Amino acid sequence: MRIVLDAMGTDNAPLSELDGALLALESDPDLHVILTGDQDLLAPQVEESGAGDRIRIVHAPQRVDGAEPPVSAVRRSPNSSIRVGLDMQRAGNASAFVSAGSTGAVMAASLLTLGRLRGVDRPALGTIFPTGSGPTLVADAGANLDCKSQHLVQFARLGTIYMQDIQGVREPRVGLLNVGSEAAKGTEVLQETYRALAASDLNFIGNVEGRDIVHHACDVLVCDGLVGNIMLKFYESLAQFLARELGTRLNPVGLDRELEDAFRVFDYAEYGGAPLLGVNGVSVICHGGSSPKAISAGIGVAARSVRSGMVAHIARDPAFR
Amino acid sequence: MRIVLDAMGTDNAPLSELDGALLALESDPDLHVILTGDQDLLAPQVEESGAGDRIRIVHAPQRVDGAEPPVSAVRRSPNSSIRVGLDMQRAGNASAFVSAGSTGAVMAASLLTLGRLRGVDRPALGTIFPTGSGPTLVADAGANLDCKSQHLVQFARLGTIYMQDIQGVREPRVGLLNVGSEAAKGTEVLQETYRALAASDLNFIGNVEGRDIVHHACDVLVCDGLVGNIMLKFYESLAQFLARELGTRLNPVGLDRELEDAFRVFDYAEYGGAPLLGVNGVSVICHGGSSPKAISAGIGVAARSVRSGMVAHIARDPAFR
Repeated sequence: MRIVLDAMGTDNAPLSELDGALLALESDPDLHVILTGDQDLLAPQVEESGAGDRIRIVHAPQRVDGAEPPVSAVRRSPNSSIRVGLDMQRAGNASAFVSAGSTGAVMAASLLTLGRLRGVDRPALGTIFPTGSGPTLVADAGANLDCKSQHLVQFARLGTIYMQDIQGVREPRVGLLNVGSEAAKGTEVLQETYRALAASDLNFIGNVEGRDIVHHACDVLVCDGLVGNIMLKFYESLAQFLARELGTRLNPVGLDRELEDAFRVFDYAEYGGAPLLGVNGVSVICHGGSSPKAISAGIGVAARSVRSGMVAHIARDPAFR
Repeated sequence: MRIVLDAMGTDNAPLSELDGALLALESDPDLHVILTGDQDLLAPQVEESGAGDRIRIVHAPQRVDGAEPPVSAVRRSPNSSIRVGLDMQRAGNASAFVSAGSTGAVMAASLLTLGRLRGVDRPALGTIFPTGSGPTLVADAGANLDCKSQHLVQFARLGTIYMQDIQGVREPRVGLLNVGSEAAKGTEVLQETYRALAASDLNFIGNVEGRDIVHHACDVLVCDGLVGNIMLKFYESLAQFLARELGTRLNPVGLDRELEDAFRVFDYAEYGGAPLLGVNGVSVICHGGSSPKAISAGIGVAARSVRSGMVAHIARDPAFR
């Protein structure tokens, strides 16, 4: 299987990407990685890595302007590592695309290049929140800020298929993020969504409050992208902050390992990147601060998406026809 | 100063209320507390406390039905500890009201009894998020789920006055909770709010992302009540969860004090309850799980609100005239 990895995405590019690719190749003997990015920069490092023909470089010298709105920025940069990588997938020269570049740019380029699956109104960004007893997929995590009920119901369905195919959860429990547990809680959009989910064939368990998330109240947590994005960033920063606060106090006592264990439940790197669900292809978006381990996990998610036939699974769901 | 405390609010009522009242009386010699609730239940305990005439009981036997929508529930229970307490404030027999009862019921009863200040479209629930380097007031934390730009701007103003009068911050930095720092980020409502705040006389520092909150990016964080409520509950549960996770691992090594220190920054009890800002009076809502210390802090917030003349301060703000 050939997976394209944008080599220019992380804050530490292309080092984290290259090391991540090597980790992924080690754990998956069927894998080939195509790096898109600056040939001159990448060639010596790939050469030195000893990966042989399992890593290939495709030259993509252009940069996506981060200051410009994503849609016009990606339109104006057809030779960027993002566009070139996605074009290879569309042309059938690769099975999936992984990038730690700007989330907005990768989403815009994925929509532009791969397009939406028929029946999907708005593709959703699904992000894993690690919890005390397993992962919860939050959809949407920032692709769609203002959502109608029908969009939220589609996110629930896309998330359900993801958790089945990628995390192996047979009947994912779907929860609706809200301010209270009763059906009549929340905005009109949320009340309407509650009724639609309750009437659907999905495994809807009702509203989930902010305090329930960390206790793994559901496998798929449905919310609009505004709430999802704010929560995600808050979550991540809080775990980092606490780890640092505690580290300062406890490390002198030599408890690094205990701390590390306690925070493992919050380790994003274990779960790889955020898939863009509902596009006609596989596009996995990783955190800009991804470690090699996180990049490798993102490649793993992409590979499982391909092997499970997730895109076809979504496409043949009767709700999307 | 006489402050009414709803004696029936906490999960541990009336014990936490009574002990909280005693703590508050100890630290503030000018204070008198009026407990509203079941006279038969309260009298022996007040007697035993030895507080003398500094604690008085006003009989209020009725319970607010938690299953009913708050507005009709409080309308149908004029003899509840909440309604009786607020009526005393309106009649001038007390200066402020503090309750750890159902947030929805206390808000509805406060609006019904005290009314809104002129010019305030929607009173906001302001809740303190403790951060690494000081408190941030989040407004709104759940009173108004669907908000227009003009409401969010009013929350910013109410929060500014609160932080000046109660926390002593001279020029509170106002941030707008959003998915990115640029003015063009977020929904139309958020973009419009950004422009209105930037054009106002408030000390607006721009958009604040989820990841900035814990670093004390601002003193007043503006958001709608849906986001505020979800964030608040998530925050609280996460800190509790981590404390427990870590406690299990570290307590055997005898590090209780270090843990306690590290989590002190997240201790709600330090900051007391959430004021309902924009009503014609002082109504402070405490957490249902409040400890005596948290109840005492809530009484402290109420007393500071009265002494600083916060309500008059809001009423004379030219923006509300």
